[in-house]
Amino acid sequence: MSHAVAPNAFVEITPSAEVEVDRHGWRAKCLQRLVRMGLAVPRSFAVPSSAVRALAAGQTIGDGAFSRVLSEGQGLVGVRPSAPDPEWGGPKSVLNVGINDAKHKALIDTRGQAAADAIYLGFVQTYAVHVARLDPDMFSDSGPGALERALRAYRAETDEDFPQDPVRQLTEVMRSMARAWEGTTARLLRQAKGAPADAALGLVIQDMALALGPGITGSGTIQFVDSETGAPAITGRFRGQMQGSTMGEGAETLYLMRDPRGPALEEVAPEAFADLIRFGALARQRLREEMQLEFVISDGELSIIDATRVARSSRAGVRIAVSMAQDGIIPQDEAVMRVEPRALSDLLHYQVDSRKPRDIIARGVNASPGAATGRIVFTAAEAQSAQARGEACVLVRRETVPEDIRGMHASVAVLTERGGMTSHAAVIARGLGLPCIVGAGGIRIDLREGRLSVGGRVFRTGDVITIDGTRGEVLAGEAAMLQPALDDSFNTLLKWADENRDIGVRANADTPADARTARNFAAQGIGLCRTEHMFFDEARLSVMREMIFADRSEDRRSALDRLLPMQRMDFAELFSIMAGLPVCIRLFDPPLHEFLPSDREGARALAETLDLPLSDVVRRIDALSEFNPMLGMRGVRLGITMPEIYDMQARAIFEATVAVATMGATVVPEIMIPLVSARREVELVKTRIDAVAAAVRNETRADFAYRLGVMVETPRAALRAGDIAEHSAFLSFGTNDLTQMTYGLSRDDAGRFMNTYVGQGVYSEDPFHILDQEGVGELLQIGCQRARAHQPGITISVCGEHGGNPESIAFCRAAGVDYVSCSPFRVPVARLTAAQLAISERHES
Amino acid sequence: MSHAVAPNAFVEITPSAEVEVDRHGWRAKCLQRLVRMGLAVPRSFAVPSSAVRALAAGQTIGDGAFSRVLSEGQGLVGVRPSAPDPEWGGPKSVLNVGINDAKHKALIDTRGQAAADAIYLGFVQTYAVHVARLDPDMFSDSGPGALERALRAYRAETDEDFPQDPVRQLTEVMRSMARAWEGTTARLLRQAKGAPADAALGLVIQDMALALGPGITGSGTIQFVDSETGAPAITGRFRGQMQGSTMGEGAETLYLMRDPRGPALEEVAPEAFADLIRFGALARQRLREEMQLEFVISDGELSIIDATRVARSSRAGVRIAVSMAQDGIIPQDEAVMRVEPRALSDLLHYQVDSRKPRDIIARGVNASPGAATGRIVFTAAEAQSAQARGEACVLVRRETVPEDIRGMHASVAVLTERGGMTSHAAVIARGLGLPCIVGAGGIRIDLREGRLSVGGRVFRTGDVITIDGTRGEVLAGEAAMLQPALDDSFNTLLKWADENRDIGVRANADTPADARTARNFAAQGIGLCRTEHMFFDEARLSVMREMIFADRSEDRRSALDRLLPMQRMDFAELFSIMAGLPVCIRLFDPPLHEFLPSDREGARALAETLDLPLSDVVRRIDALSEFNPMLGMRGVRLGITMPEIYDMQARAIFEATVAVATMGATVVPEIMIPLVSARREVELVKTRIDAVAAAVRNETRADFAYRLGVMVETPRAALRAGDIAEHSAFLSFGTNDLTQMTYGLSRDDAGRFMNTYVGQGVYSEDPFHILDQEGVGELLQIGCQRARAHQPGITISVCGEHGGNPESIAFCRAAGVDYVSCSPFRVPVARLTAAQLAISERHES
Repeated sequence: MSHAVAPNAFVEITPSAEVEVDRHGWRAKCLQRLVRMGLAVPRSFAVPSSAVRALAAGQTIGDGAFSRVLSEGQGLVGVRPSAPDPEWGGPKSVLNVGINDAKHKALIDTRGQAAADAIYLGFVQTYAVHVARLDPDMFSDSGPGALERALRAYRAETDEDFPQDPVRQLTEVMRSMARAWEGTTARLLRQAKGAPADAALGLVIQDMALALGPGITGSGTIQFVDSETGAPAITGRFRGQMQGSTMGEGAETLYLMRDPRGPALEEVAPEAFADLIRFGALARQRLREEMQLEFVISDGELSIIDATRVARSSRAGVRIAVSMAQDGIIPQDEAVMRVEPRALSDLLHYQVDSRKPRDIIARGVNASPGAATGRIVFTAAEAQSAQARGEACVLVRRETVPEDIRGMHASVAVLTERGGMTSHAAVIARGLGLPCIVGAGGIRIDLREGRLSVGGRVFRTGDVITIDGTRGEVLAGEAAMLQPALDDSFNTLLKWADENRDIGVRANADTPADARTARNFAAQGIGLCRTEHMFFDEARLSVMREMIFADRSEDRRSALDRLLPMQRMDFAELFSIMAGLPVCIRLFDPPLHEFLPSDREGARALAETLDLPLSDVVRRIDALSEFNPMLGMRGVRLGITMPEIYDMQARAIFEATVAVATMGATVVPEIMIPLVSARREVELVKTRIDAVAAAVRNETRADFAYRLGVMVETPRAALRAGDIAEHSAFLSFGTNDLTQMTYGLSRDDAGRFMNTYVGQGVYSEDPFHILDQEGVGELLQIGCQRARAHQPGITISVCGEHGGNPESIAFCRAAGVDYVSCSPFRVPVARLTAAQLAISERHES
Repeated sequence: MSHAVAPNAFVEITPSAEVEVDRHGWRAKCLQRLVRMGLAVPRSFAVPSSAVRALAAGQTIGDGAFSRVLSEGQGLVGVRPSAPDPEWGGPKSVLNVGINDAKHKALIDTRGQAAADAIYLGFVQTYAVHVARLDPDMFSDSGPGALERALRAYRAETDEDFPQDPVRQLTEVMRSMARAWEGTTARLLRQAKGAPADAALGLVIQDMALALGPGITGSGTIQFVDSETGAPAITGRFRGQMQGSTMGEGAETLYLMRDPRGPALEEVAPEAFADLIRFGALARQRLREEMQLEFVISDGELSIIDATRVARSSRAGVRIAVSMAQDGIIPQDEAVMRVEPRALSDLLHYQVDSRKPRDIIARGVNASPGAATGRIVFTAAEAQSAQARGEACVLVRRETVPEDIRGMHASVAVLTERGGMTSHAAVIARGLGLPCIVGAGGIRIDLREGRLSVGGRVFRTGDVITIDGTRGEVLAGEAAMLQPALDDSFNTLLKWADENRDIGVRANADTPADARTARNFAAQGIGLCRTEHMFFDEARLSVMREMIFADRSEDRRSALDRLLPMQRMDFAELFSIMAGLPVCIRLFDPPLHEFLPSDREGARALAETLDLPLSDVVRRIDALSEFNPMLGMRGVRLGITMPEIYDMQARAIFEATVAVATMGATVVPEIMIPLVSARREVELVKTRIDAVAAAVRNETRADFAYRLGVMVETPRAALRAGDIAEHSAFLSFGTNDLTQMTYGLSRDDAGRFMNTYVGQGVYSEDPFHILDQEGVGELLQIGCQRARAHQPGITISVCGEHGGNPESIAFCRAAGVDYVSCSPFRVPVARLTAAQLAISERHES
């Protein structure tokens, strides 16, 4: 057999050796850094990925390499994986390679019979199972005589003695690790974490620091921050007589510091402990990261055998990054770059404690993060009663409709059987910051019986469940919770983010509560205030219906006149909360039939209220019904056909502007026209709104400014953005509707096949969740280009749900938007994302 | 007052004079041609539009001009408008300008008192009303002494004598005509006929050939073809003692030829009559057009005073154009250019005779041309019973749904209360060639009572009405009809058109009847065969529902296995009819809930058939219902989620292909995937269909070819056409759905505001009727470019309703499509349009 890999391919890890992450992997490089810091790292070699590949392909390695590696100490080594990125995993480490009958005998002398047996047995077991691929059950034995039985079993199964040649052992161990790296599961797992298809494995071969034997001997880990909170705290444990998973005689756990559970290493081996503390501080400083050190103490002598990045919660991640920047170890913008924006969401909400057991009864789409526990209610009315009684409740519906909004306000969480990421329930819940699971296909709701059935279990009205909206899990009963973490570190990080950001971030906020949340999260204004919810209040709804049933313009106007003071109040409150910041109000958008009763009983009640024959009411409701409401008589089409509605809204906006101005709050309201598809629509609406403004200025003898713009949500509006921009102070892309129309896909109906579609790779992502850059995105780019070409000073933004999604924000920023607007609870994510994009670009250029 | 226009600006119309259409107008040019032919045209002058403009602006014209004009004969002239295009109209002609007391006296001697009085009175009346703008009632007098009374009235109203100066008379007459041309109504009317905003008027001044006086004297018109049929026929009339609208003493009508109604000119003045016949033939040859001659006979002497293009029906237009080409007067391609494509539609259908009175009870959108009379039915079932009884019936519905198709087949016409140009009823009716009116908003249908109310009138089941789908008028009772005209001329014209055409024309045809019509009209194949109607047959519907309710793939497959032989028959029949031509079959497209009952009664019946609890059936129906079916689980989404459906259809197509091949009919079926928005959808469907093809080839041991393509109907498919083309043999733009999605506008719901929108100019046209070139059209262009860039050989077509619209065809051809496909009854229109486009382009280049 020819030697394909030169013996000198193995690099001894010294301070000056040529060790590269690309070739030798992340662990090899990290070990070199530890060596350079002067830490007591056992002699280690880096094996390049080329050599590992050659081994996997069946080639061998020149003997010289191995004899050098195996030449010192007891001649025992450990082999560890060293991938280019620690996240990509790798095969299990194999320790004590090189052990054989002769070395076993020698170890008995130096380490004692028990330690020597444990070391040999451990290796035989590992080798038999992972290298020779024998039945693990035959080698699971322990206790007296286990070593002899294992060696016998090996011989019986393979017809040969257990290999005594350390070089052969090492070659086979490395080859088995190399092949494990190529396995399908391993490949899929690491690719899911972003590894390229040709990611290569390096290995590290390290002299064993034996953790079995006389004196203070054992292995342990230590870290200097709390993984859950990120606060300074020395944690870890040291287990005596423990090498990897192999336990020798007299094993016991020593705690690092004084601990009620047992003796402390700090007391037993104060010098080693002090070294660990010192090494930890050094590693943090020099590796610019919170590290967990893996160490062995062998008869009192400390070796650092490995160091890895401390595992951490989202919350800890923020605190660690901020504190390292505050300590001057990393610059502020690097701290900003280190936090995954998506992770911020976890910090804003209660979370189910992941360390506790959970009784999962159903899974669905994790539509809005956070967790809450409450009693089941099946209707919005029940939810409001529960709230009145001071009872936390979870609203469970097949799907929600606009009438359910007050019920959602009254609930602590929402669960629906149908729907996807952008169903009504999901959008509203995210806006409200309510934990929400939608599309929980396995559940079945029997509204009449007040029953929720799932997998043979039945829950009734009043039963307690917990919604884990972060994971998309419905839990039976109450679950242990972690508090939200809007602490100093969080605020500091976002402050630094804002200093780096170069696009604006606003919030989509419909209510005063939303607006307050938005302000709390430092949104730079409201990018989308939907006004339709304002008409669902009972008192308003009946006036609304009167307006809908009016045949003549005067009658419509008279009904609207009664709505005017309420709308003025709505806007005045929003303007006061957002004082000094822009508020973009979308004019009335939904089809009118959403405001009419959907069942016969409701129609009868309405007939009574309006004093009309039932048949008339039914006929009118029927006449207003639509085949495809999404594509029907709504938005600007309604605004042009029944201009009195927009007139009233514009008046309310202007009067509110004047009113809050008298109280010292400056607002420049932005008025946005929905569902535009042609320039003339904008012209017609603009003419009327300008007239209303003139009238209000006249009547109030007050001056005020406002900006009129267009919501770009039809493909045609994007294509004609040049035209449309001429009459618009701003364009805001409503990417939800734009996605619906570009794909010809209703978000309310997509839930039934979206999982299949994403599962089969038909769509690489749910386009309602991640902006479809190739289709919808191209329309967005076209729209931006043409609008700017016609009117360079125009403000362009994105106010669809995508405004809160990091990938989508990156795309929108590249397309040239001035700001993104997202649900209030996504504002921190957007602020951080936008900052990271600006920093990355600066670093690249 | 300065003379702004030089006297020599008036050009005497001689064979060599410089008379130009642009400057002097169409009539001046036409007269010059008559002069060149040697016809007896009175001395005439062309007044350029610059002079007319100057007059309108209040300037005057050098006296020399007028003295020249007024110098000969009796010194009386007529002034006629001469616009650049005869279609653009113009002010009324004014005759006998120059008459005054002196000339009146002279005329009494030569023409007699009665004629002289009539001539003077006629001019005074015209001058008073149109030039001096006096009250017409004061000048409407006739009878003895009328002339004196008129002159007195003029003096009383204006405080001056009636102007005696011929130059002043002529100046004022011309100025009033010039100003009339600038009037708002006149401008709007001519712009509606295509005149540019700055269209200018020329005038013709002609010596009067007096039609009042002794002997055979009078005026008449003559033409040589029948205006309704285009067949050769001498028609017209001659009225003795009649000048314009002024009648002298002893007036009578002479008929041109022998006529039971009175004496014939042919007999009374055979020479003049023979001259007219000769002049007519000459004019046809030299003017290359069928002309109507206007003539005066003055004491036996013939003058040709004007000639205009013969007014003609669509049918006559075709016959005239063809016969002129056959006589070698114009080339064939000019004949093709002369017929307005839209007019062909009139020839394919029965029409209400426009010369008869009509009792209009309602108006709506003229959704499908032609006319038919029948008894009112309100349900599809009634329609089928009526058909069974052999009774013609008109199906009247609020709107039609797919279940109504058989009822439509059984009806002679369709009327719906709701809907627009591309509503279900409209599309299907055009396909079937049924006259159809949709969106007849004024009618009210009471289904229970079997009553149709409109404007206070009530019609009941069985009452007879007539649908005029060409005009969009509903008539009470039976109306007189004209036959369709698919005669030799029609066929000859289209044969010539086909020789010139450079894009293909196919038909959208779903049924054997459609296919036969398509073949009759020489469609070059089927461009869109929708398959869903095939499942509404009662026998199939129940199997379909069983399939929909199946939970497992096997059960679905077993239901589909029963549909397979029926589908195979469907396709085999289509393929036989279309033998030798391509047939493009669109795979199943609609959402499944369209096949389920929509009311409780239907659900109960279904529960019984399927032997399931009613609650289960209701729940399933409910679960399948969608918010926006247009954007839901249909088309390829269904094909991927329930692949058994497309498998069955593909098998039926391939087996039918093999079956008809054994009978000697070659077919290369085209299979089209609907509602694609991503390339992967095409890949997945293609894999399965290729597998089905392989299986059928194996089983039948027969080879066959097929082409797989994509229907481009989502904006995303157009944007990603490059990708999608890679796996497609063809792309066909479904412009109906593409329009819906580009605008975010459901055609079924647009009817409620489309009229307002087009009326207010928000949309310049109904985009479902005329392709929106700026939005939808840009997507079509983008799609064509990208598809061809990736796959130059790909076939691209348009199969939406726009494929039958001339403007839209022009756009599609320019965008580079290979063919258009339209409803069978639009095929002739498309063939002619396509030919004209090719000819125009050839002439321009």
